[in-house]
Amino acid sequence: MTSKHANDRQQLKAPYLLFLGCGDNELSIKTSRGIAVWNPDVCLGEIAGGNSPLTLGLPKMSVKEAAEKGAKTFILGLANAGGYVEPEWEPYIVEAIENGLDIASGLHRKLEEFPAIKAAAEKHGVELHNVRHGYTDLKTGTGEKRSGKRILAVGTDCSVGKMYTTLAITEEMKKQGYDAEFKATGQTGVMIAGYGICIDAVISDFIAGGIEELSPANKEDHWDIIEGQGSLYNPAFAGVSLGLLHGSQPDVLVMCHEANRAHIKGLPHMPIPDMADCIELNLKHAKLTNPNAYLGGISLNCRVLSKEEGDRQRAELEAKFGVPCFDPMITGVSSFVEALKK
Amino acid sequence: MTSKHANDRQQLKAPYLLFLGCGDNELSIKTSRGIAVWNPDVCLGEIAGGNSPLTLGLPKMSVKEAAEKGAKTFILGLANAGGYVEPEWEPYIVEAIENGLDIASGLHRKLEEFPAIKAAAEKHGVELHNVRHGYTDLKTGTGEKRSGKRILAVGTDCSVGKMYTTLAITEEMKKQGYDAEFKATGQTGVMIAGYGICIDAVISDFIAGGIEELSPANKEDHWDIIEGQGSLYNPAFAGVSLGLLHGSQPDVLVMCHEANRAHIKGLPHMPIPDMADCIELNLKHAKLTNPNAYLGGISLNCRVLSKEEGDRQRAELEAKFGVPCFDPMITGVSSFVEALKK
Repeated sequence: MTSKHANDRQQLKAPYLLFLGCGDNELSIKTSRGIAVWNPDVCLGEIAGGNSPLTLGLPKMSVKEAAEKGAKTFILGLANAGGYVEPEWEPYIVEAIENGLDIASGLHRKLEEFPAIKAAAEKHGVELHNVRHGYTDLKTGTGEKRSGKRILAVGTDCSVGKMYTTLAITEEMKKQGYDAEFKATGQTGVMIAGYGICIDAVISDFIAGGIEELSPANKEDHWDIIEGQGSLYNPAFAGVSLGLLHGSQPDVLVMCHEANRAHIKGLPHMPIPDMADCIELNLKHAKLTNPNAYLGGISLNCRVLSKEEGDRQRAELEAKFGVPCFDPMITGVSSFVEALKK
Repeated sequence: MTSKHANDRQQLKAPYLLFLGCGDNELSIKTSRGIAVWNPDVCLGEIAGGNSPLTLGLPKMSVKEAAEKGAKTFILGLANAGGYVEPEWEPYIVEAIENGLDIASGLHRKLEEFPAIKAAAEKHGVELHNVRHGYTDLKTGTGEKRSGKRILAVGTDCSVGKMYTTLAITEEMKKQGYDAEFKATGQTGVMIAGYGICIDAVISDFIAGGIEELSPANKEDHWDIIEGQGSLYNPAFAGVSLGLLHGSQPDVLVMCHEANRAHIKGLPHMPIPDMADCIELNLKHAKLTNPNAYLGGISLNCRVLSKEEGDRQRAELEAKFGVPCFDPMITGVSSFVEALKK
């Protein structure tokens, strides 16, 4: 799934050894789980430290074994409070470096901030990829029309399923014979695809310009399926969402929403927007850089609903907005992809 | 005009010695000119290098004289292509450091990247302020209501007069007895005020959060007059503008526009938005974090118009939108400030 691009942002070398840390919190390995689910071909194996019971069902192997089998990158697809390299992780990282593996991290703190890691990397000449850093040579956006087609996931909030939706759409489009490519804009997406730009980690002047670079002009029948971030109605992150919308100049929007969410994530005082408003506002902004932008479908995350209630809510949204409404986990996304042909 | 804040962003020590570079391009000293015009009290003097004919009308003095007279900060309020320290500037900067002055720079490149400057600063223990860098400890926004009042400049495009408008409003409000404070969000503004946050230079996740910090809760009758940036209709920078709008939670918007501008700055393919649309869209977004936001006035930059045509266009906008329309350079801003009382 990794591919070559003119300007390879964070191009990670496959195959990967996924490091699961030393703890027992399933949520801490969300990024690695995403890679194992969406790009199993690049996952050679997994390694957990200490007495960690965590597993992704991949072949378990030591760093040395992985290196012998050809592993190229040691993936720190881990989350912790503070976003730093925990002391118990360090020996595994250093061993990986000593065995010639690059390191890729989605942590907030840079790998170079940890002296043992920095020294080992310099000594052994491996690359340290901090996927949340290093976007220092981007250009500002222009809004000029680019050839090729683009789909962008937008949403009523963060964490409603935009990455999952765009990965599922990419897979289904490929199955149906489209020239389709997933374009990652967040750390998990970047690690799954092997390249991309964490758009919430760039300097704010370059949000739109970063996306213009990530999704450049292409063949007329090529589709970029661009991972969305945040929401125009999230008071913390709306700026990122708007720059992403302008930079993507999407032909097709897919609106993502989690059924029955009570309020904006982490902000009990902020209501979830009305979906009709949210669609209208996203289309209004999208038309600045693509006057033909339209709503192609609604991805409804039904995880908290009964089967019957999910069926009912999706039918209601289809009737109201006249586009396919699907849950990629439950119904798949073929209705959305079929409708693209019209 | 400098003031003390809980978390002093880029707090520059006054008085300043303004360095005008070694060239003859009036546009290159735009930032220094802004400081001399808007905060003359902090400008001890000016110094130009080589045979430069440039002057801001301040007392001319050598670095040594300035230091003896108490100068605390040497201001590099200069612009050049590439945003770097030109070799001819270095001796002046190093001399300032040797005389105990801090250095403040609005250049893209950091002062520390220039070895002679870095070495001298370390040796003499002075501070290097890169006002376009260093915002690494911001928090994400929350959109929670803060006490106090806020005015934000928004616009149809970049470079239409938002900084000038907000500085003029601050001055007029103080004259009329308000507790008003200018809050800088760009490099020139930061150097004028002596503190602030260059919001286009922060990591995109922190646009709104940065502004929430810049304009914290305050007394109910305190007004922050927040410098605007960009436009929701500028395809390069709209993300910055939206985060700034949400983070400011403005009570009052002032819409800034340059009369007869043909297209978005630097982008001939992008039209200037219709003003009614632009006002409506800004108010819609503003209401996410302040449901009571309203349009308080229109600042029309009439520099390309005849007096008669300027009078005519302002009268037309007043009639159409029912708010004061002014050009701070021509009419002053008292009509806007008077209308705040209603």
